[in-house]
Amino acid sequence: MQLEESRATASQQKEVTVHAPGTVANLVCGFDVLGLCLNEPSDVMHVKLLDEKKVIIHSKDGYKLPTDPAQNTAGAPLIEMLNELDANFGFEVTIEKNIKPGSGIGSSAASAAGAVVAANHLLNNTFGKEDLVRFAMFGEKVATGVKHADNIAPCIYGGVTLIRSIFPLDIITIPAPDLYVTVVHPQIEVRTSDARQILRKEVQLKDAIKQWGNIAGLVAGLLKNDYDLIGRSLEDVIIEPVRSILIPGFAEVKLKCIAAGALGGGISGSGPSIFMLSTNLQIAKAVEKEMMTFYNSIGIDYNTYVTTINKEGVKVVNYTTASISNINAIAS
Amino acid sequence: MQLEESRATASQQKEVTVHAPGTVANLVCGFDVLGLCLNEPSDVMHVKLLDEKKVIIHSKDGYKLPTDPAQNTAGAPLIEMLNELDANFGFEVTIEKNIKPGSGIGSSAASAAGAVVAANHLLNNTFGKEDLVRFAMFGEKVATGVKHADNIAPCIYGGVTLIRSIFPLDIITIPAPDLYVTVVHPQIEVRTSDARQILRKEVQLKDAIKQWGNIAGLVAGLLKNDYDLIGRSLEDVIIEPVRSILIPGFAEVKLKCIAAGALGGGISGSGPSIFMLSTNLQIAKAVEKEMMTFYNSIGIDYNTYVTTINKEGVKVVNYTTASISNINAIAS
Repeated sequence: MQLEESRATASQQKEVTVHAPGTVANLVCGFDVLGLCLNEPSDVMHVKLLDEKKVIIHSKDGYKLPTDPAQNTAGAPLIEMLNELDANFGFEVTIEKNIKPGSGIGSSAASAAGAVVAANHLLNNTFGKEDLVRFAMFGEKVATGVKHADNIAPCIYGGVTLIRSIFPLDIITIPAPDLYVTVVHPQIEVRTSDARQILRKEVQLKDAIKQWGNIAGLVAGLLKNDYDLIGRSLEDVIIEPVRSILIPGFAEVKLKCIAAGALGGGISGSGPSIFMLSTNLQIAKAVEKEMMTFYNSIGIDYNTYVTTINKEGVKVVNYTTASISNINAIAS
Repeated sequence: MQLEESRATASQQKEVTVHAPGTVANLVCGFDVLGLCLNEPSDVMHVKLLDEKKVIIHSKDGYKLPTDPAQNTAGAPLIEMLNELDANFGFEVTIEKNIKPGSGIGSSAASAAGAVVAANHLLNNTFGKEDLVRFAMFGEKVATGVKHADNIAPCIYGGVTLIRSIFPLDIITIPAPDLYVTVVHPQIEVRTSDARQILRKEVQLKDAIKQWGNIAGLVAGLLKNDYDLIGRSLEDVIIEPVRSILIPGFAEVKLKCIAAGALGGGISGSGPSIFMLSTNLQIAKAVEKEMMTFYNSIGIDYNTYVTTINKEGVKVVNYTTASISNINAIAS
């Protein structure tokens, strides 16, 4: 039934443009389970229907990302989607990448999530959001070798998401308060695989207890709009002490940002980006200034973003119906 | 200032009766940080002001609990309270113990929490609830050798509480949904110290991640009134697999209760009691029947309780002002 509808849908020729935003995975105390969606930066992705079963990737950026669809984080999820539909159509994707790969703010997830949301829009929303997360995780597998959803889920759902379980997939949306997010991306390379490899496989029970007290506090703080509680709970006694050694100046930046009024923050994903939450724009900008001053002082290039929590995730910004001749021209 | 007020208060002669309820610590995935207050069973405690600095304990039960106040779970917290106040008065406590010691539903915590709430009432609520938890933890130290608050806090605050941190104390109240609780106490002995000793000091990171995904899910479920999510999150991959071996038939009882419709449940505190949450009384009673049938079949004595979540904690049920001559008679 779904399949027939999709085939019927594919016979219409359409094109869609989406904004696929960056995300902050882990949220300090929620390693591998929590994530938050940002309003900036975001990739711009154009996806067109093709009348044969193939996926074509164009990458409009200087990052030399693979354009072989099976090796591309946007392509792999679309191949899965087409296979599941037993489709006789395909997609052509053009990615304007604004989220730098390796930044730790969900660059690969944005491509994967943007691709599947756009494709699903072209298919009259055949799939639910959980299905889209399932497909998009194939992009993360291409990018990092591991299927994980802590960037994908917030990118697709918006706000803050909890991945209670990956197998079976159990995604819980957590209403996000109106907080400001400041992000600094020091231009150093931290490979996700390295950042994962340096973690110990075993942790002290007493540390794990502290960590689950904090994640429980953070979730309660988010749901109760208790900003002080959110701040107190943004503590990581397990991952941060290990991973932060890969980020020059992490401890100092964090201290300065909190002194400037941030509720708290830490490593974004596996780094090297650092994020901080603040209750208002003035503090968020003061926090940005601390970040800039510090990385200027040690001579490391950086990007910063002062933004808010994105409550809707990947957003369709343009949607057109093309004539059949156009589609054929593109597909050929 | 507080001290002077308390001394002034002590010159009035008063007596108070409280109900101090049982509690379920851990709530499956929240080892050492979560707890829930029950409406039944509860101890009845009578506390009178004495006009000299001493604590007298009377125990009206067959449990042979120590009546030396420094060794008694109600006495030790009161000694701390009196010392902090530099008091020239004291308390006489009579405990009608209904919560069997060693049951795993917070018997020692009820005595400690009941004593401090009653004493504080006699002192015109000089102390806040957090102070009372701090005092009452001295009772837990006497009982188990460790200061912990996962029974004390729900007993004093009611509902569900999160102890995000013990040092410094950070207690978060979590609005409790209208769920039914079925408890079975198989009459076997599990010493809290043994139940703690058999735990490994290190845990797998992957298990810890699962656990903090579950506690985050449970807190979100409680705050969102999402019963299915509460049920899915009541999973413990770290403590239960180890501790349950001390409880005959644990796995079978749990399976039967969930088959009878319970949302989920597990070991209450360090056991041997088992608790189950249900959405209505009919299911809660069906769950009780499964528990009874099972322990009848293997010939182990038991108590059961079908109750609800107690949203107010220790409750003052009677409060009288005695004449000075009465007080002197009791104190002598």
